[in-house]
Amino acid sequence: MSERIYIFDTTLRDGEQVPGCQLTTEEKVTVAKELELLGVDIIEAGFPVSSPGDFRSVVEISKAVTNPTVCALSRAVIGDIDAAGEALKLAKRGRIHTGIGASDIHIRNKFNSTRDAILEQAVRAVKHARTYVEDVEFYAEDAGRADLDFLCRLTEAVIAAGATVVNIPDTTGYCLPDQYGAKINYIYNNVPNVDKATISIHCHNDLGLATANSLAGIMNGARQIECTINGIGERAGNTSLEEVVMAMKVHRELGFETGVDTKRLYPVSQLVSGMMRMPVQANKAIVGRNAFAHSSGIHQDGHLKNSETYEIMNPTDVGVDKSSIILTARSGRHALKHRLELLGYRYDKPTLDGLYKQFLDMADVRKEVNDKDLMELVR
Amino acid sequence: MSERIYIFDTTLRDGEQVPGCQLTTEEKVTVAKELELLGVDIIEAGFPVSSPGDFRSVVEISKAVTNPTVCALSRAVIGDIDAAGEALKLAKRGRIHTGIGASDIHIRNKFNSTRDAILEQAVRAVKHARTYVEDVEFYAEDAGRADLDFLCRLTEAVIAAGATVVNIPDTTGYCLPDQYGAKINYIYNNVPNVDKATISIHCHNDLGLATANSLAGIMNGARQIECTINGIGERAGNTSLEEVVMAMKVHRELGFETGVDTKRLYPVSQLVSGMMRMPVQANKAIVGRNAFAHSSGIHQDGHLKNSETYEIMNPTDVGVDKSSIILTARSGRHALKHRLELLGYRYDKPTLDGLYKQFLDMADVRKEVNDKDLMELVR
Repeated sequence: MSERIYIFDTTLRDGEQVPGCQLTTEEKVTVAKELELLGVDIIEAGFPVSSPGDFRSVVEISKAVTNPTVCALSRAVIGDIDAAGEALKLAKRGRIHTGIGASDIHIRNKFNSTRDAILEQAVRAVKHARTYVEDVEFYAEDAGRADLDFLCRLTEAVIAAGATVVNIPDTTGYCLPDQYGAKINYIYNNVPNVDKATISIHCHNDLGLATANSLAGIMNGARQIECTINGIGERAGNTSLEEVVMAMKVHRELGFETGVDTKRLYPVSQLVSGMMRMPVQANKAIVGRNAFAHSSGIHQDGHLKNSETYEIMNPTDVGVDKSSIILTARSGRHALKHRLELLGYRYDKPTLDGLYKQFLDMADVRKEVNDKDLMELVR
Repeated sequence: MSERIYIFDTTLRDGEQVPGCQLTTEEKVTVAKELELLGVDIIEAGFPVSSPGDFRSVVEISKAVTNPTVCALSRAVIGDIDAAGEALKLAKRGRIHTGIGASDIHIRNKFNSTRDAILEQAVRAVKHARTYVEDVEFYAEDAGRADLDFLCRLTEAVIAAGATVVNIPDTTGYCLPDQYGAKINYIYNNVPNVDKATISIHCHNDLGLATANSLAGIMNGARQIECTINGIGERAGNTSLEEVVMAMKVHRELGFETGVDTKRLYPVSQLVSGMMRMPVQANKAIVGRNAFAHSSGIHQDGHLKNSETYEIMNPTDVGVDKSSIILTARSGRHALKHRLELLGYRYDKPTLDGLYKQFLDMADVRKEVNDKDLMELVR
């Protein structure tokens, strides 16, 4: 029996706020429909009060999708919540995501306020959001650096006020996996009404730890992960949807499952990358151009003997056609022989050894040796 | 008192074997000199037996650098080790890195061998390497999926044979942080002569967990991390040097230190990216274009009030000039006011409110609003 983990995609909100990634309403609707096909549970569609374009996008996405919950962001401010509630009117399942800074750094520097005043404002915001929708998520911003006991008091208060989901974000990407897991664990053990809500994970990748932190979160009781396609988002980005989903799939022993159709991961990654003009680096996990490419001789040889030697996932599981073998000066005889055979050339060992020497000289100069180069070599 | 962690850079070996990343000998020497200035402890310079160009590169790097140890890769094969030993002749400090598959998947599929035969071959290889250099590192390939007790037997045997460093790689990027940490811990508790060698971490990022796994490794006793600039390397790449180094620096409570001059991280990242024609994605942690950029209104406002609100590192610590604020439809009044003031415009609140509305309409269309756009706005 696997535990169901809910995938909350914020590509169109936390991702879209990235410099250069802004999309038109029509583009956002296209992405939202693809996210629905991908099987995400919640689509965070925008921050309606922030601009007329963002308001319109939330309205149009609410009309366009059926299965996923459509979520709209707001600060713990009445006007923001009203805009979110209005924008979600046509959603089949609407959720308002409201919240406020929970760390002392945020409470003092950003709000010039006190813990008690912040707690009151949070409760008021959740109650107001509940007048629009039954599904209200509260975010305790900068929870990663917040005082744990205050975080528990705040969580308890917003659940009592009607929050169905409480998001414990590591807003600055500060936490180590053990620390983040311990924080979620502490909340589960110290908030009396925690079973009345879902605890959600929202991590940033400033130290390259977002995926590990998200896994630590669900291993300690959280049941929703907030993430984005290609890990885009503010600064170093959010947790990569494709990484956490595939980590749960590869590590079945953890006992988690999602509703994601992993075969659509690569096509959706390409769509978002193209539309947002955000190239995915070649060595990006799961969806990078090289994620399933083998280039060293040792790896190519092992891969040709048995793909399991160097692969823990089947590329077709994530929608990639097949693993690729690229010939360079680091390739061995086995890979050269294999490629020549694909081109229709078979040689005895001495001839192949001679060709391999010529191949290495060519590869030292040309770097990558393609099929045309090989034809030249054999002629 | 901090524990010293040794940084083993394999940009020029595991990184350089990536499709499209091949460098000339002259380019490799340039990178090696920059790595020396960066303060890495060991530079893996190549795999001498693999091609004449790679052999020459190891020779030239051996001549070019003084402080870092220069390391050459070899399989556990006499000819490979001879080539590595020859190539390292002029190194001030030379290390041969030799090894063989340790998991049953590798032993069966790749070598069609047995555990005992593999162990004997490993011991022979280490002894042969010691005839060339005093510093010999052994890699137990695919240790991430190897039987733990066999891994301990193998580690004990190669240390007894003269290995000074034993590398426990997660070759396929399979492990979760807890699993990888437990593996290192088990080795520390079950290899009688483990104190005679350094245990090294070599992780791959197939599930986005390389940085977390490397940290789990050192938290369980390992003292060397193998990594690359920008995390390049086979498939989804290796552990990112910049991520592990900054994680140790930000989390001083872990009690680790390195010899890396972090202010050189960004320049070295740019050099390697340009030379290898491997663009770094904008949201890459530490060295991506957006790693210190703030675009949402909530974040810009907090950042302007106090940079600590959304930053856990000072961008100058990694050689980035300063954090940037980019104006989009997600920006708030505070960021607009701040930018207008930098341009020399000050307005009362009602005028600013009016300008802000016009700004949002402009931003919905133009996506990013630059200073020229703002001048147009105020006219």
